[in-house]
Amino acid sequence: MVNVGIVGVGLVGSELLSQLKATGAKRLKVVGLTNSKKMVLSDTEYSSLSLTEWKNDLENGVPADLAVFAKYLSEAKDHSVIVDCTASDAVAQLYPSWLKAGVSVVTPNKKGFSGPLSLYNEIRSVAANLGGSGKALAYHESTVGAGLPVLATLSDLVKTGDEIETIEGIFSGTLSYLFNNFSSLSGGNGAPFSENVKVAKELGYTEPDPRDDLNGMDVARKVTICGRLAGVDLDLSTLAVENIVPEPLQGVSTADEFMAKLPEFDDHFTKLNEEAKKDGQVLRYVGLVDVKGGKSGVKLIRYPGSHPFASLQGSDNIIKFTTKYFPNGLIIQGAGAGAAVTSFGIYSDLLKIQERVEGF
Amino acid sequence: MVNVGIVGVGLVGSELLSQLKATGAKRLKVVGLTNSKKMVLSDTEYSSLSLTEWKNDLENGVPADLAVFAKYLSEAKDHSVIVDCTASDAVAQLYPSWLKAGVSVVTPNKKGFSGPLSLYNEIRSVAANLGGSGKALAYHESTVGAGLPVLATLSDLVKTGDEIETIEGIFSGTLSYLFNNFSSLSGGNGAPFSENVKVAKELGYTEPDPRDDLNGMDVARKVTICGRLAGVDLDLSTLAVENIVPEPLQGVSTADEFMAKLPEFDDHFTKLNEEAKKDGQVLRYVGLVDVKGGKSGVKLIRYPGSHPFASLQGSDNIIKFTTKYFPNGLIIQGAGAGAAVTSFGIYSDLLKIQERVEGF
Repeated sequence: MVNVGIVGVGLVGSELLSQLKATGAKRLKVVGLTNSKKMVLSDTEYSSLSLTEWKNDLENGVPADLAVFAKYLSEAKDHSVIVDCTASDAVAQLYPSWLKAGVSVVTPNKKGFSGPLSLYNEIRSVAANLGGSGKALAYHESTVGAGLPVLATLSDLVKTGDEIETIEGIFSGTLSYLFNNFSSLSGGNGAPFSENVKVAKELGYTEPDPRDDLNGMDVARKVTICGRLAGVDLDLSTLAVENIVPEPLQGVSTADEFMAKLPEFDDHFTKLNEEAKKDGQVLRYVGLVDVKGGKSGVKLIRYPGSHPFASLQGSDNIIKFTTKYFPNGLIIQGAGAGAAVTSFGIYSDLLKIQERVEGF
Repeated sequence: MVNVGIVGVGLVGSELLSQLKATGAKRLKVVGLTNSKKMVLSDTEYSSLSLTEWKNDLENGVPADLAVFAKYLSEAKDHSVIVDCTASDAVAQLYPSWLKAGVSVVTPNKKGFSGPLSLYNEIRSVAANLGGSGKALAYHESTVGAGLPVLATLSDLVKTGDEIETIEGIFSGTLSYLFNNFSSLSGGNGAPFSENVKVAKELGYTEPDPRDDLNGMDVARKVTICGRLAGVDLDLSTLAVENIVPEPLQGVSTADEFMAKLPEFDDHFTKLNEEAKKDGQVLRYVGLVDVKGGKSGVKLIRYPGSHPFASLQGSDNIIKFTTKYFPNGLIIQGAGAGAAVTSFGIYSDLLKIQERVEGF
């Protein structure tokens, strides 16, 4: 039996609890839950918390204290895992201490794996699956492409001696949606770029301030994570990232002002799109890990209509590994955002840990 | 440390030995090798065999005896795995006895997982990762799409409570190559069907008798394997399989005679192709697992030009899962045949077993 503590019970954390409940996960036992205010821990026997009444129980819980939370989990007789469902930097900084205390980590939070190299190095010096010497594991499949098997596949390629040349992908559901609609050889939806951003915002596909998508930092984090697993110690602060927010709008203070002024720059995007179309190409916003060539980065580039990236639909992600074993590419494609698929990735990671800890 | 015994050291088995040697696999130790004639086993200490001199050592080995081979592996103190790199029915029938003796199985051999349900049921009643009660595991990623992460992904989806609706794919590198070239909206290569078969045969892409590809049985086996993992106990003997060998040629006695007469049937294939093209569609030979609808089978069908199956290149495989979590599909695409990628799948499976057996 493996104990599970969940930090952050918003959309993803709640969905994980639903999936665990629906499947009656026999060898995983939720024994702790916390959000930023309240916390509930099980008894000294580490009995399972109620997966039906957890909301109530949490509301009536004690004040949140992550140190107490982690200590409780680390003192269990059975192996414990903390699932970090926040997007918090501060929580990510606790991973090394948890791992050192023998508690595994599973998370969709990109901060620990794409932040300062020093933090990442601390994590991988302990986590056994990342080459560390500790008795705990750190799995983070859902940090890239949500539940798509991107990192598991990359890790298998690396461990079996494949040589990764490039990892190229449309890593952002938001930017996938925007450019699939704006730039397609069948004409796209014909609406100007700003109109596409507006619709995506209204549908809830963008961050509250769409500049947080368009500045490329989310994609840059995913590129950094993939790069590090592939053996290139990319650093967010030096990665070449093309911010497609028009420069004069990068400094405006509110999202509303940005949205109001974006139409003034539609001509720029229309021109790029028309030029591409003339050559039978489309625009896509991609992240690239270039293992040998050093051209890793995030940029808006063109693809011919026959390329798999050109025919992408909806808000799908697509990731292509080009390697010694797969010179023509191994491609993984599908929904890369949303609570259900993110939680699927977390749940898969939990099962990997459970199987590894329990053996048979 | 995990002991590895390899049965069959042809193309794939040799490649696996190369990959193990090249990576210096620290926790996997090859202690036995056998082909149909000779066998070499290590000492009573289960020391590693030489990965440099193995060919010589095998030539000078003792007469092959699979019973002795399996017994040797089962008596080791550490966990042992037998890798079956044959395509043999007889070897597959030994899996239950190996598993019962606590020896895990890794294989690209489709026979044990697509053959009689009685054999498959015996395997899964023991193999812990297939729900069995034994202390051994059976991994067979390379039976479908070679090293592409098809079965690992399917297994994760099933275990986390996803509901698989369909699994649709181009599962044969040979038939992928044939139809990608024969039927494409950009015109294909313009050559008649028989000419494409001839070229594929000359390139070594087909079986010695191409009817063994065109009869759909290889695809049917892969559909059966995926179906069973998805919870539908498909049976090769009752699956609907469209044999695209023209009926009058199904009975001719030699491959040469078949090849000589195939051009007489080019009109049939040309007509199908032209009709599809008129509607903006292409022909693809696909396998389908239809979990709820019962329409599982293998058939030649049409796809619109915008479908990911239509733009496939070379001899790539492509597999699409449509599920509750992924209503728009999770797609995996890439090389699905060849010694390097098949061996990659085997090696990944071996590491999964090693990690599961050793924990940290």
